[in-house]
Amino acid sequence: MTELSQLRETLDGQRLWDDVQALATIGALEPKGIRRLALDAQDNRARLWLAEQGRSLGCEVFFDALGNLFLRREGQDASLAPLLIGSHMDSQPLAGAHDGALGVLAGLAVFRTLQEQGIEHRRPLEIVSWTNEEGARFAPGASGSSWFAGQREYDDIIAALDGDGVRFGDALHECLSLLEDNGLVYRPAPFVPYAFLELHIEQGPVLEQLGKPVGVVSGIQGVNWYRIEVEGVANHAGTTPRQARRDAFDGAHELVSALKAATREQDDDLRFTIGKFSLWPDAVNTIAQRATFTIDLRHPTQEVLDVLDSQFHVLAEREWSGCEVTLEVTSRVAPVAFPERLLAVLRESAHSVCAEAPELVSGAFHDAIHLAQVCPTAMLFTPCRAGISHHPDEHIERKDADIAVRALAEAASRLLG
Amino acid sequence: MTELSQLRETLDGQRLWDDVQALATIGALEPKGIRRLALDAQDNRARLWLAEQGRSLGCEVFFDALGNLFLRREGQDASLAPLLIGSHMDSQPLAGAHDGALGVLAGLAVFRTLQEQGIEHRRPLEIVSWTNEEGARFAPGASGSSWFAGQREYDDIIAALDGDGVRFGDALHECLSLLEDNGLVYRPAPFVPYAFLELHIEQGPVLEQLGKPVGVVSGIQGVNWYRIEVEGVANHAGTTPRQARRDAFDGAHELVSALKAATREQDDDLRFTIGKFSLWPDAVNTIAQRATFTIDLRHPTQEVLDVLDSQFHVLAEREWSGCEVTLEVTSRVAPVAFPERLLAVLRESAHSVCAEAPELVSGAFHDAIHLAQVCPTAMLFTPCRAGISHHPDEHIERKDADIAVRALAEAASRLLG
Repeated sequence: MTELSQLRETLDGQRLWDDVQALATIGALEPKGIRRLALDAQDNRARLWLAEQGRSLGCEVFFDALGNLFLRREGQDASLAPLLIGSHMDSQPLAGAHDGALGVLAGLAVFRTLQEQGIEHRRPLEIVSWTNEEGARFAPGASGSSWFAGQREYDDIIAALDGDGVRFGDALHECLSLLEDNGLVYRPAPFVPYAFLELHIEQGPVLEQLGKPVGVVSGIQGVNWYRIEVEGVANHAGTTPRQARRDAFDGAHELVSALKAATREQDDDLRFTIGKFSLWPDAVNTIAQRATFTIDLRHPTQEVLDVLDSQFHVLAEREWSGCEVTLEVTSRVAPVAFPERLLAVLRESAHSVCAEAPELVSGAFHDAIHLAQVCPTAMLFTPCRAGISHHPDEHIERKDADIAVRALAEAASRLLG
Repeated sequence: MTELSQLRETLDGQRLWDDVQALATIGALEPKGIRRLALDAQDNRARLWLAEQGRSLGCEVFFDALGNLFLRREGQDASLAPLLIGSHMDSQPLAGAHDGALGVLAGLAVFRTLQEQGIEHRRPLEIVSWTNEEGARFAPGASGSSWFAGQREYDDIIAALDGDGVRFGDALHECLSLLEDNGLVYRPAPFVPYAFLELHIEQGPVLEQLGKPVGVVSGIQGVNWYRIEVEGVANHAGTTPRQARRDAFDGAHELVSALKAATREQDDDLRFTIGKFSLWPDAVNTIAQRATFTIDLRHPTQEVLDVLDSQFHVLAEREWSGCEVTLEVTSRVAPVAFPERLLAVLRESAHSVCAEAPELVSGAFHDAIHLAQVCPTAMLFTPCRAGISHHPDEHIERKDADIAVRALAEAASRLLG
C-alpha cells in the first residue's frame, strides 16, 4: 500500500496530459483553440465529463446552487473540513486549453492517484470547478467562487445578461437541470474549506524568462479601474484658432502625461494600462468634444493604490487644455496576501520537486482571490509560452506541467495528512 | 434710372433676410435646423425654388451636367465672360440656415437689385449654386465646383455611393430630369468665368471676436490628412511587467507628444487636430495591440506643410515604446492664395461699407478653392455666432449680413462695369 508521502512520486504525469487533451476536445475550435463560455453547451459538457471521471473513480460528485462542481474523496475523519483544490473550466471566446482547466485537472490527477493507489488520508479532499471565472459571457466573472465565499449575492449574479440577452439565472437553471438529470447530487450550501489550493498558468512572462517550471504565488495584486471623461467643445479643425480651442483630445493627452508621471515614482510592481480610448464625434476634421478612456491600475499593496488613487483624483480636478474632467472609479478590488503558513507549505513542496521556485504576485484575478476571504488560500503558477493566454496560441510545456502538478501533489499530501 | 455705382445702396437687406427665411423652410427640421442633403428631395426643391426666383425676375436659368444651377443676367457685351457669384444650397445632416445658402442668396440679392432697378452693366452676371459642396451624403464634397473647374472627373464623381448604397449618378439623373420637367434649360459644358466671388459664413470665431461684420478672405489653407497606426503587442494588463510591454497606447502617446512638439515651433496660423483615435482590442484590462489615429494639419503656406510633413515622416520611422509606426497620407490639398488684384477690389468694397474689414485665411474648404484654378477667385466672410456651423445652433446677425452683402454688391458693381 502506497503512503501519502509517496503521492507526488506515484502521480502519473502522462495521465494528466491525456486529461488535458481529452477536456480540450470539448469546445475545440478549428484549426485550434477552445471556446467554452460559461454555462453554454460546451461548458456544461465539460461538467458532465469531469463528473464522469469522478464517478468512474467511485467517488461522490456534488453540484451547488451556482453550478460549481465538486468531486469528494472521504478522509479518515469525515468531520474535518476538506482541503479544496481546483480552478475553472469555462474559457474566453477564443482561448487555449490550459487557462483554468489545468488547475482542475491537476486536482483530478491528485485525486486519481489517491484513489487508484488506495492512499488513505485523514482529511477529506474535494476537487472543484468554479462557474464562470472568465466573465466573458456574463460579466463580472468569478461568479461561482465569489458566491461560495460570500462575496457576492446570488440575486445579483443571476440577473446578469449575456450579449444575446440571456439571463445568467436561466442558463444556470438549464445547467443544474442537466446535472440533476445525469444523476449528480445537489448540495446547495457553501462550506468553509480547510484550505484552497489553485494551480494556474502564469499568464505572464516571468517564470518563462527565469526558466522555472513552477512559482509560488504570494498574493494577488489589487486593482482599481477608472473611467475618465474629458469634456471640451467640438469645432471645425480648420477654422478654429489654437487659442479658441477646447480640444478634448489635447486635454486627455495632457492629463495622461500627468497620470503617467505620477505612476513613474512607484516601484516596478505597478501596472498602469490605458486599454480603452475613444473620441466623440470621432471625425478627422472635427475637434473632439469628448475623450473617454479607462485606466487599469494594479499593485500588490493597498497603500500604493491609495496614494495613486488620491493623486488621480487631484489631477482630475484641474482643467486640461480648457477641458473639464470627470473621473469615476468603476471597480476596486483589494490586494490579497496569501497566508505565510500556507506559503511555507507551497514553498517546501515546490522545493521538493525543483531546485528553485520563484515567488511572484499574480497580476491577474483568480478564483483564489475570493476563497482567500473564507479560508487559507494560496496558488502555484506554471509558465505559459510568452505569457500568452486568452488566445489559441496559449501553450505550456508538458515537462513544466509535470513538475508543477507534483508540487501541488506534495502540498496536498502535507495538508491532507 | 439707377446707376451701377448705386447698387450697394439700393440693395434691399430685408429682402435678402426674407429669402434666407424662405429657403430655410425647405428641409426645415423640428424644433430647428436644416437638412438638405445633396440631391435629395429637399435639395432638389431648393433648386426649383431658386430657379423660380430667377424666372420670376425674367432671367434665364440653366443647369449643367452636375446639376449646378445658374441664373444669368445679360450684360451690354454678351461676348464677355460673366462674373460668377454664388455658393451652395446643400447642407450637413443637421445644419443651420446660412452655410452656403447665404452666399447663393447674397448673389440673388445683387441680381434682384440689378433687375428690379433696371441697372445696366457691361459684363454678364451669373448666380450659381454648386452641387454637393458638403460631401455629407456623397463623399468627397465640392462635386459641382470641382467638376466645373476641371479638377475632378465626371465618371469618378457619379460613382460615389451614399450610406444607403444609392449612386451619385442615379440621384443626379433624377435631379436633372426634375429640372428638365420644370422647363429649365440644360447647358452642359463648363465655361471660364471672368471671376468668381463667394460670400460665406466664417465658421470660425475670428470676426465675431473682432466685432467685424465682414472680412476679406485672402486664401484657403492647405491641408494634409494623415492616418497613423502604432502596432504593439496585446497582453494582460495585470500580468505583464513594464519592461515586457509593447503598449500601442503608450507608443501613440509618446509619438503624439513628439508630433505636437514639432508643431509648436510653427506660427499661430497652424492647425493641428487629432479628431479620431481608437485602440484595438479596446478592453479595459488588455494592453492595446494597435492604436490608430488621424491628423488634420492645415496652414496657409505650402512650405510650412512640407516642413512638418517631412518631420512627421521622420518621427514615424522611429520606434515608440517598442512599437512600430505606419504613417499614411490620406489627403493633400494645396493652399490657395487669392489673386491680389481681386483682393484689392474686395478690400476697397468692404471699406466702402464698414470702417475696417480684417483679412483672414479660410480654414475650411469652399467651392472657391476649385474655382481659383480656372479664374480669379476671392471670398468674403461674415461672422457666425461662436464660430458654430454644421449645427442647428448656427446663427448670424441680420445687421452683419446686411453689411456683408453690400460689400459683395459693391465688388460686383466694380467688376461688372
